[in-house]
Amino acid sequence: MNKKELSLPAGVFAASLTPLKNDLSIDFDRLISHCRWLLDNGCNGIVVMGTTGEANSFSVKERMEILDALIEAEIPAHKLLAGTGCCSIPDTIELTKHAVSHNVGGVLMLPPFYYKNMSDEGLHAYFKIIIQQINNPDLKIYLYHIPPVSGVPFSHSLIKKLTSDFPETVIGIKDSSGDWQNMKSLCENFPGFKVYAGTEKYLLDILNIGGAGCISATTNLSCRPASKIFNDPYGNEADSIQKKVNALRSIIEKYPMIPALKLVMAEVSGQVEWTNVRPPQTKLKKADSTKLMEDLKSIYFPDEFV
Amino acid sequence: MNKKELSLPAGVFAASLTPLKNDLSIDFDRLISHCRWLLDNGCNGIVVMGTTGEANSFSVKERMEILDALIEAEIPAHKLLAGTGCCSIPDTIELTKHAVSHNVGGVLMLPPFYYKNMSDEGLHAYFKIIIQQINNPDLKIYLYHIPPVSGVPFSHSLIKKLTSDFPETVIGIKDSSGDWQNMKSLCENFPGFKVYAGTEKYLLDILNIGGAGCISATTNLSCRPASKIFNDPYGNEADSIQKKVNALRSIIEKYPMIPALKLVMAEVSGQVEWTNVRPPQTKLKKADSTKLMEDLKSIYFPDEFV
Repeated sequence: MNKKELSLPAGVFAASLTPLKNDLSIDFDRLISHCRWLLDNGCNGIVVMGTTGEANSFSVKERMEILDALIEAEIPAHKLLAGTGCCSIPDTIELTKHAVSHNVGGVLMLPPFYYKNMSDEGLHAYFKIIIQQINNPDLKIYLYHIPPVSGVPFSHSLIKKLTSDFPETVIGIKDSSGDWQNMKSLCENFPGFKVYAGTEKYLLDILNIGGAGCISATTNLSCRPASKIFNDPYGNEADSIQKKVNALRSIIEKYPMIPALKLVMAEVSGQVEWTNVRPPQTKLKKADSTKLMEDLKSIYFPDEFV
Repeated sequence: MNKKELSLPAGVFAASLTPLKNDLSIDFDRLISHCRWLLDNGCNGIVVMGTTGEANSFSVKERMEILDALIEAEIPAHKLLAGTGCCSIPDTIELTKHAVSHNVGGVLMLPPFYYKNMSDEGLHAYFKIIIQQINNPDLKIYLYHIPPVSGVPFSHSLIKKLTSDFPETVIGIKDSSGDWQNMKSLCENFPGFKVYAGTEKYLLDILNIGGAGCISATTNLSCRPASKIFNDPYGNEADSIQKKVNALRSIIEKYPMIPALKLVMAEVSGQVEWTNVRPPQTKLKKADSTKLMEDLKSIYFPDEFV
């Protein structure tokens, strides 16, 4: 098996939603279908159990069952980036070992996110223990920088120390800060480090400066046009497609992201169970749902997207 | 068994530290000794697995083992307030059921703390599911309001709805906001609701307006003088003892709380393993340790405290 061919691809990733049954248990069948659809419609890879996937609303056991189900359904493991970062070292190790045993393309690791304002030294020690205890060359960590949610940013000095100390292991980042200057600076300051923008809004921009692609919530809906940008970034259509994709994201961003995306999935598929979310998430209200779908129709969604 | 006599006491609580061995596993023996010492030296009760106890740095299994060990060591269960709030419904239910099965005085429940800016409706739904699924009249929930760390505050409208809907279950709060006006307003607006200040700094103040007491990190060190305040709040000495206790807290607050407290425990006990912390926490540096102990000696610690 050629490891290199089976490493995580560059390109457009969706941070997959996690479909739930009415009793809020995981709807494995719908999840598998959705992941297949994403890969068939332009996604180069998928994040399972990221923020959009409501990862931290599931137990460690449930999170492992999700990955087991996808692998059993023959979703290509190397196209999966598995969210495995918890608050505690033992939970993060358990999830990460499990993901590595499935030969996933990589793991997406949040910093321990309960305590705030921890030192770089403390965060480095956390990752060091995890890497040393897992002790497996197949472990490929992508740092998950999402300070608006986690409350715990990765400083550039911490990234420098982690990539210096573990150059074969800490190999990329998902930057969901929303801050283009940070993404740009990561691409410039860490050559070879795989930087995925946390939004497709910056897909063309980040490809232009050597970034790896994007990993986004909204590419659950816009993976087809987004993939056209990735496949032909210097083509005549790239700019206009980027604008369309941005228009969709701008509409979704007016609403709470997870319930809004699930509402659209329900409307497009006719499967009302798609709207189920685990608290503290709440379903979109009726009026908001109507408004959202009207707004989307104004940009010819889904006709020009899916 | 008279349930009323065995309910959580009012008074001074320590949010217990969690002693660790050099391999960062739990030092059960030292934890048991520490809890016994706290109860023998003025603590009316103990929070196990709170923020100071590094709760979220342990797995669900480890957290249950800690409570099992304390119960087996015959630490009175009704004096224990067990931290059981996680990000996910299944984890929170598992820990809470386990704690209730041990007849603890109550559980201290964080809101689900990964997602920020969730609606009151979503947070209410989260607690409702937990309460309904546990479905046990022995469940007594104390809300854990600690926005500087959790990033997820409890609004008064949410507290009102929870206490209205579940008056026999949601019966108190630990307010670690540091905001006296919030504690005061909780005491005034929710008669009968047990409000514990998250710092002994406001012990006398909160007792004066009908609060239940305090639950604090620093009472790991100052439980003896703090208990004198609680036992005789209108006595001649209360004010002067409150000042001494505040002086200790002011010193500790200059340093990262958990490693500072553990350093002092190590110095006072001669047990150097007390300094162990789980990353992302880090041990206090040598210079800070020296300075901290010098500062404490200037207020006659430990002589006038323990």
